[in-house]
Amino acid sequence: MAGMGVTALADRVVEGDPRACARLISWLEDRQPEALSILAGLPVGRALRVGVTGPPGAGKSTLVDGLVRAFRACNLKVGVLAVDPSSPYTGGAILGDRIRMQGHAGDPGVFIRSMGSRGQLGGLSEATDAACRVLAAAGHGVVLIETVGVGQSEVAIRGVADLVLLVLHPEAGDGIQALKAGILEVPDLFVVNKADLPGARATRQAILAMLDELADLRGEEPGLPPADRVLLVAAEQQDGPLAPRGALAERLLAARDGRWQPRGRDVRALVRAMVLRRLQDHLEAVPPPADLAMPESAAETWLADVVRHVLQTGESDGS
Amino acid sequence: MAGMGVTALADRVVEGDPRACARLISWLEDRQPEALSILAGLPVGRALRVGVTGPPGAGKSTLVDGLVRAFRACNLKVGVLAVDPSSPYTGGAILGDRIRMQGHAGDPGVFIRSMGSRGQLGGLSEATDAACRVLAAAGHGVVLIETVGVGQSEVAIRGVADLVLLVLHPEAGDGIQALKAGILEVPDLFVVNKADLPGARATRQAILAMLDELADLRGEEPGLPPADRVLLVAAEQQDGPLAPRGALAERLLAARDGRWQPRGRDVRALVRAMVLRRLQDHLEAVPPPADLAMPESAAETWLADVVRHVLQTGESDGS
Repeated sequence: MAGMGVTALADRVVEGDPRACARLISWLEDRQPEALSILAGLPVGRALRVGVTGPPGAGKSTLVDGLVRAFRACNLKVGVLAVDPSSPYTGGAILGDRIRMQGHAGDPGVFIRSMGSRGQLGGLSEATDAACRVLAAAGHGVVLIETVGVGQSEVAIRGVADLVLLVLHPEAGDGIQALKAGILEVPDLFVVNKADLPGARATRQAILAMLDELADLRGEEPGLPPADRVLLVAAEQQDGPLAPRGALAERLLAARDGRWQPRGRDVRALVRAMVLRRLQDHLEAVPPPADLAMPESAAETWLADVVRHVLQTGESDGS
Repeated sequence: MAGMGVTALADRVVEGDPRACARLISWLEDRQPEALSILAGLPVGRALRVGVTGPPGAGKSTLVDGLVRAFRACNLKVGVLAVDPSSPYTGGAILGDRIRMQGHAGDPGVFIRSMGSRGQLGGLSEATDAACRVLAAAGHGVVLIETVGVGQSEVAIRGVADLVLLVLHPEAGDGIQALKAGILEVPDLFVVNKADLPGARATRQAILAMLDELADLRGEEPGLPPADRVLLVAAEQQDGPLAPRGALAERLLAARDGRWQPRGRDVRALVRAMVLRRLQDHLEAVPPPADLAMPESAAETWLADVVRHVLQTGESDGS
């Protein structure tokens, strides 16, 4: 594909060529100037973007794997964007999960890619949203975006996903009270995973109780009644009522077909995170003041230098 | 203390009054204009700042509790700054640990305070450094800064602590390889906690092996030989060779007395984090552009507006 023209690349993305998608996403990750203009020219595809989040050990990757099988059985092309974790403590486990997903490697209807996070955008790569647009233009009906839940990522995922799934361990029941209200408000659907293990029903009840409290506080009900938003799933199962291809896949397909309305994407949050990333880049490019004896004063001086740098590099002229 | 003058407050801090310390720290957290000038006028105290970090469940709070007892037995005043976690999944456990620390509530030589983190500065509050300066001026010989290790905080703690302890679970052995090199380079001392449980010695060996690898790569040995940097501790024990008041407290006191040199504070990293926080505040104060259809272009427009806001509010004139 070396030397391939820009128009040819765009055409091949629209034809659904996975190698062309991968190439364009790489260019976007590298912030190649041409990549953005290709992106702006692509047709807007119709893909449901599903954010899959939750704490380490909840079984997110196994669930994603089960959902891929379910959507493939419906003849939908599926994209999977796995955002590498920013937490050093879970690095090993996630890598192993990545390898497990290779079971789909021979299926041209499944596009799988890891996106580096570098700790920015609450664990999401800046290019994640752009990658979703590429995959939608290439005819993927669903894009699953898997992130590790470490606080900020649950909120950040709202910036790129139409619908957010929070995956929890079946024994999370007692810990539900510790989930901050701000986190509980993000997911459209809660998946109590490994639901063949003890504790799953109690965990579901604890989530429902919290949702009831929230509804009393806020007086609003997004999309579905609470009882329909909390699902018992056993991600490892291929068939039966707890399998991902059962009620969970059905509910996602219903969202895709407009039979219920998830909360939708918060583009403003995405753009805010992108601005913050740019500010950080400028900060990294400007050396600190020589005198750091009083950190507060030094911070003011450095801030002034950073602003000067933004103005000088001309990235602030809206070009 | 209402209506108390600024000079009187500074005097009472220097006399070691805990209520005056608490008041000044609150003012600093609220960014009261007078607080910074009081801070700049305080004498520079001699406190060893010990950062205590590590993953949830490693027993950091119990260790801090044991160290407080050890330093009190040496007649040192001790400050404890507990940075509230940004991870929603550990909120409950940390709150419980806070309560356990109340055992020192009747001791005027122990100052304990939770600092809100709001997810900034890698889990550290902007006022954490200022609080350390207040406590040092008030005659505290040691300040223990406890943070939850979720990736960034291990690096951020270097900005405020003279010496960093990484606390690990005794069964962390297999997970050591998953700790990124950047994290392993931060701690001066590694504490394998709950060392009366199986696996502790193997975990210590795994850490030593990683340190050997690092030393081969970088060719430098900070402060102590590797074998002296990895300690087996049982934080719950009051006495005996594994108790915090044993080898661990001795090693910290040796650092305080200059008998070995820990890596020391990275003030530049602290100031960088403070600048980033200011940039974030400006971003929050500026409304997003109306057209968000292409996130990348919208981000450029918003960035230009933020820079204009910094210039207009005059915080960038170095005052």
